[in-house]
Amino acid sequence: MLKKRTTHLADASSSAGSESIEQADRRSFFKKTLAYSAGALAAANVLSPVKMRADDPAIMEEKPWGTTLGDPVTKNRYGIPSAYEHNVIRRNAQLLSSGNWQASIAMCPVQDMEGILTPNGLFFSRTHGGVAHIDPNEHRLMIHGLVDKTLVLTMDQLKRYPSVSRIHFIECPANGGPEWRGPQFNSIQFAKGMMSCAQWTGVYIKDIIKDLGLKPNARWMLAEGADNSHMGRTVPIDKVLDDAMIVWGQNGEALRPEQGYPIRLLVPGWEGNLCVKWLCRLEFASEPFYAKEETAKYTALKPSGKAIQHFYANEVNSVITSPCPEKPWTDLKKGDIVEIEGLAWSGMGTIEGVDISFDGGKNWVEASLKGLVLPKAWTRFSYMYKYEGKPLLLSSRARDDAGHIQPTVKHEREVMGVESVYHRNGIHTWQVTAKGEVNNVQILS
Amino acid sequence: MLKKRTTHLADASSSAGSESIEQADRRSFFKKTLAYSAGALAAANVLSPVKMRADDPAIMEEKPWGTTLGDPVTKNRYGIPSAYEHNVIRRNAQLLSSGNWQASIAMCPVQDMEGILTPNGLFFSRTHGGVAHIDPNEHRLMIHGLVDKTLVLTMDQLKRYPSVSRIHFIECPANGGPEWRGPQFNSIQFAKGMMSCAQWTGVYIKDIIKDLGLKPNARWMLAEGADNSHMGRTVPIDKVLDDAMIVWGQNGEALRPEQGYPIRLLVPGWEGNLCVKWLCRLEFASEPFYAKEETAKYTALKPSGKAIQHFYANEVNSVITSPCPEKPWTDLKKGDIVEIEGLAWSGMGTIEGVDISFDGGKNWVEASLKGLVLPKAWTRFSYMYKYEGKPLLLSSRARDDAGHIQPTVKHEREVMGVESVYHRNGIHTWQVTAKGEVNNVQILS
Repeated sequence: MLKKRTTHLADASSSAGSESIEQADRRSFFKKTLAYSAGALAAANVLSPVKMRADDPAIMEEKPWGTTLGDPVTKNRYGIPSAYEHNVIRRNAQLLSSGNWQASIAMCPVQDMEGILTPNGLFFSRTHGGVAHIDPNEHRLMIHGLVDKTLVLTMDQLKRYPSVSRIHFIECPANGGPEWRGPQFNSIQFAKGMMSCAQWTGVYIKDIIKDLGLKPNARWMLAEGADNSHMGRTVPIDKVLDDAMIVWGQNGEALRPEQGYPIRLLVPGWEGNLCVKWLCRLEFASEPFYAKEETAKYTALKPSGKAIQHFYANEVNSVITSPCPEKPWTDLKKGDIVEIEGLAWSGMGTIEGVDISFDGGKNWVEASLKGLVLPKAWTRFSYMYKYEGKPLLLSSRARDDAGHIQPTVKHEREVMGVESVYHRNGIHTWQVTAKGEVNNVQILS
Repeated sequence: MLKKRTTHLADASSSAGSESIEQADRRSFFKKTLAYSAGALAAANVLSPVKMRADDPAIMEEKPWGTTLGDPVTKNRYGIPSAYEHNVIRRNAQLLSSGNWQASIAMCPVQDMEGILTPNGLFFSRTHGGVAHIDPNEHRLMIHGLVDKTLVLTMDQLKRYPSVSRIHFIECPANGGPEWRGPQFNSIQFAKGMMSCAQWTGVYIKDIIKDLGLKPNARWMLAEGADNSHMGRTVPIDKVLDDAMIVWGQNGEALRPEQGYPIRLLVPGWEGNLCVKWLCRLEFASEPFYAKEETAKYTALKPSGKAIQHFYANEVNSVITSPCPEKPWTDLKKGDIVEIEGLAWSGMGTIEGVDISFDGGKNWVEASLKGLVLPKAWTRFSYMYKYEGKPLLLSSRARDDAGHIQPTVKHEREVMGVESVYHRNGIHTWQVTAKGEVNNVQILS
């Protein structure tokens, strides 16, 4: 029993408002290259994957070396991607924003990610009042409440604490949330792009707390952002003292403005909205704060009509990234060996294994994990497959070392209904047609 | 016995030619923010570290939340750094270029790196004829010579091979090369910035070779670039079949043009120039090719007047990144606890330990390794230190699991003389003055 609904991506993203100066620059560069290159015309076709050209007789022609000097090394002191990669961008959809691009989300092109890291320029971004630009010299972090000593730190003072660097994903708990009732987007970027993974550098909050003296009745911590939405979330003290960090570095450099420059909270594995950006205040208290964003938002409505309010860790999850709607198998020939790849992650531990099904979950085979396998981080899985040109229902099912496994969509609906918006982690399925096209579907039986 | 010579950084980089459009955009944004923020004036002071403001009564003033909407998420579909980070850029010096910015090098701001990754926009870049811009749809990779079957691959065909992602540094063997006779730059970026570290995604050459059938007399592989310099280097077959890769991905996205877009060779741990960019040809042969860049360049002249020609792995090395000339201790007070941090790396294996000396190498204490410790990758070390306001000679000495340890400068000179340009890995020392200033020195005794 399949349910399928598609939104044409080009429509969704063409309504997405003004483009940045940088995008415009890259476009104008691209126009220049058009004059020299017929191949660039193919690349300009929005979201059309580059075609295989194995049958093109030009393949065997000699390709000339460059005969003119390239750009001087002084040109891009801070580098930008090749103009040919102009299609690899964050995207957003009217459906997810109601036309308000400040209280909105920019989705990561998961289909284009390599390994387990997301470059900062493509890291997904959810904002409640737009991207704030904060002067680090003026910014302060106040730590107060149920502590013996109140602290107000400059950024330089904060960076004096011993730093740690950790690779962790951040995922919005609404990742896939529009699809509780069935597929809305024939796109991995729109269906699963509310997540990314990076190396984060900062200080463990437990290392700051040592100096302050936490009072015994401190059970909760409020984190508050300096942006106009005054984003606030409460974190239980056990998690704070386990692995919560204040981070200033992302993938080797300073956080980007979209990620909370100069500092954000990082609550590894838990809901992305807990990782408060533009962090300006931590307050310790004996009771939760019930901030605006943890009553109206970020609670999960159950079929009974009651909502789960304290609901934090992103559950074990996975998605096949190749093939996917943006990376179909339409160029494959029967008998071709192809690598099925995907990403698995769990906010509760380390990925232990991933299974793949070709018949929508009736039978499973085990995929390999490849590269680094780290706790609360994207983990890449792989399965070498002989393509037969037959229709498939391609599913992945991840397991973590805390004993969790992804539920079927049917099971998830039985427990959670279809109203909860957040924390969808049911097994995801792509329909592969006989022609190799890939569609977003849900297996309800 | 100290030797010290300094080149003023601002002079070196102000002569560096035209700036990119993107830099100009970031500058103009920055100018706008100046109107609103006195703090930005301090940040505009080139290479002056932001001052601690612990005694500033403004610290305890209430900082207002943002009161206006921020940027829409649609603004930067490919993000850029905060305008306040405008000083974190690649730099280059007249001394290293003879005024030719195409046959030149852009150095990584090592002082600003966090963890073990370099973001792509700041990854160091050495070019022999400028940065080429290559259309991936037109690009081909030919594999031929002593193989049973010649192959010409499109980029799509190449990407069909099973991919791997690995974190490795790339270092130019000339990193530190201008300083054989003594310090030339009072700067870590200029003294040690010809290196960076990233996650690379691509295919092992051994996995392609399997299908081609390597002839038994194939002992060497030529790699050639499609740029105007026709960059070519020969790699011994044992290394090719060990861990050499053809890579298209860097830190999760496509290679940047400066790194050889669409593909480069990666020879983990070996001289960066072997990692041929804009890779278009691999030829297998029974003898080395003695390409232009392995006769005139990239050989090491010894005191005897003879040169070492086949000289590949970057030796075990390290440098303290905090403090350094760009990140001095001038704000510290006597008794402050401060973290000494640095990077260690070896092209021959995994870093096993790093020692730190405060007296220029007479006595040593062991630092901690922190975060991921991976083979042929940057490895971060740390030592918590109580600052006493006394002059120091601060050195680091790394060891790898292949049994190598950094030599003293004295020992290195005895063996190599001062003419070799390449492969300097003598123990590096910073002089810390009583005021906390940091200078580049060499211990010759």
